[in-house]
Amino acid sequence: MCRACNYTIHAAQHHFGWDNSIAPVQRVSPGESVLYHCHDSSAGQLGPQSTVADVAALDFGRINPVSGPVWIEGAEPGDALKITLDSFAPQPAASGRGWGWTANIPGFGLLADQFTEAALISWDFDPATMAPAMWSKEGRVPLKPFTGTIGNALAEPGLHSVVPPRRVGGNLDIRDLSAGTELWLPVEVAGALFSVGDTHAAQGDGEVCGTAIESPMDVVLTFDLVKDARLKMPRFRTPGPVTRHLDAKGYEVTTGVGPDLMAGARDAVAGMVDLLCATRGMPAVEAYMLASTCGDLRISEIVDMPNWVVSFYFPRAVFE
Amino acid sequence: MCRACNYTIHAAQHHFGWDNSIAPVQRVSPGESVLYHCHDSSAGQLGPQSTVADVAALDFGRINPVSGPVWIEGAEPGDALKITLDSFAPQPAASGRGWGWTANIPGFGLLADQFTEAALISWDFDPATMAPAMWSKEGRVPLKPFTGTIGNALAEPGLHSVVPPRRVGGNLDIRDLSAGTELWLPVEVAGALFSVGDTHAAQGDGEVCGTAIESPMDVVLTFDLVKDARLKMPRFRTPGPVTRHLDAKGYEVTTGVGPDLMAGARDAVAGMVDLLCATRGMPAVEAYMLASTCGDLRISEIVDMPNWVVSFYFPRAVFE
Repeated sequence: MCRACNYTIHAAQHHFGWDNSIAPVQRVSPGESVLYHCHDSSAGQLGPQSTVADVAALDFGRINPVSGPVWIEGAEPGDALKITLDSFAPQPAASGRGWGWTANIPGFGLLADQFTEAALISWDFDPATMAPAMWSKEGRVPLKPFTGTIGNALAEPGLHSVVPPRRVGGNLDIRDLSAGTELWLPVEVAGALFSVGDTHAAQGDGEVCGTAIESPMDVVLTFDLVKDARLKMPRFRTPGPVTRHLDAKGYEVTTGVGPDLMAGARDAVAGMVDLLCATRGMPAVEAYMLASTCGDLRISEIVDMPNWVVSFYFPRAVFE
Repeated sequence: MCRACNYTIHAAQHHFGWDNSIAPVQRVSPGESVLYHCHDSSAGQLGPQSTVADVAALDFGRINPVSGPVWIEGAEPGDALKITLDSFAPQPAASGRGWGWTANIPGFGLLADQFTEAALISWDFDPATMAPAMWSKEGRVPLKPFTGTIGNALAEPGLHSVVPPRRVGGNLDIRDLSAGTELWLPVEVAGALFSVGDTHAAQGDGEVCGTAIESPMDVVLTFDLVKDARLKMPRFRTPGPVTRHLDAKGYEVTTGVGPDLMAGARDAVAGMVDLLCATRGMPAVEAYMLASTCGDLRISEIVDMPNWVVSFYFPRAVFE
């Protein structure tokens, strides 16, 4: 419940993929706030009792539902929709606990060629305190909820996959689209036709294994409109620091050096998987999934021709 | 002066480019510490009184001198050289002040096609307090000194350009190779033949305009050896948080969304240049150079086929 909200978008009010012919479920004016009951990215196909067999059996036609669309009054192509991310509240499981899942889905993820078998981590956390979630008995992953998918409808007609993000937003998976952040998205169609979903309890920059801590949440957003903003790409403003929940003990960092950023990213992440296996004795696929929830891909240098440096930062606080 | 050091590598003991036939200037045993009097990356061609004409006249044959090489006793191919970065002390100018330079060098930098004219920012700071350096009268750039170039000689004979970093290190330009960090580098030749230089007073992830706050410094390093480490790429460990000197007020963030990480990085940085010009009324080339000293390139997602998200984070503390 959100007393200050103008509208609620209920769980049933969702769609799969982007299509500007989908009828809006609500009309919203600039300045108004909306509560969204978002599904997790499996649309409930996975739950606290799921096993790896359920990952292998996922129906990809039902992946990544987004709640909406809402019509923003006055929005026209060329405007920017401003979204203030007011709050996130995990939807507790039947046990009363917060929960989420991280999976290695065959064919998906930065190292999909190296990790070909389905795998699953099920997370349990306190939805009131949002204290770090435990990996096995030794790892503590700090939580910071955000929306993985947040965007406007495309101008181009027809049904478009929800998987790739675009200039209007969508599956951006930017881990700092969290409480207090202000986001501006280009508008390409009348009314913007905004939708949101794919809530995550935590993720590092890159979402390297392809999934975060996927977790259903209630989200409150407030809308505004910037007329004729001519914004080329999404931009956002964070209200404060973005890594203090996990940086206190510093980082272990692996690198990839070479002429291709994608290869550098792969080398850096593969190096971290090797390091975690060697130092923590954990299975490689677990290291890969854990890294996805809390480790950050950064471009350390992109100018020293012809070789660039991509670095993967794993927070030492997880194990120390 | 470094009372605890075993050796000093003086300013004259430097070389240009990597060549494993260069005779070592010192033999050092694991466990020993060395003080290096490092040049700035212009090898003194630029100074506090330099103008943009001096940037245009730079002799690239004298770019990026590195101090050394030192022979590490016992180091053999397949080992890893561990370097602990103990301390950094800026070399004051004649005025007693710390100084540094940031340049747009034609033909060099992420947006070289858009910024074709030479440009220069000269920085002045307090070398004792290392309080933020001022950009114009309004911007404050937090300082965190580090070594831009740090590496071992390559196995491949001959003279190799100092510009690109390689798996043995070199011009890594990783802004967290700062005081307290431990770095491991692959060894490819007997004795490792380690050199260091290209000290920077501050830089963001990416070094997007091609230069940082370039500043001559004294650096103290301690060496150790990990036998038969079989390290594929450089890795490092930071002793604590890496962005708290600049993250207190959060970030303005621009993005690039699309199927190519390099294009995404260019879009994100160009978006930030546009945003800084629009909101601060500054010339574009100044925004580009300023961004290089304090803004960070991150890969927000690299798995949502076929589009990736690269984000550029500019710290709001610079202007707020």
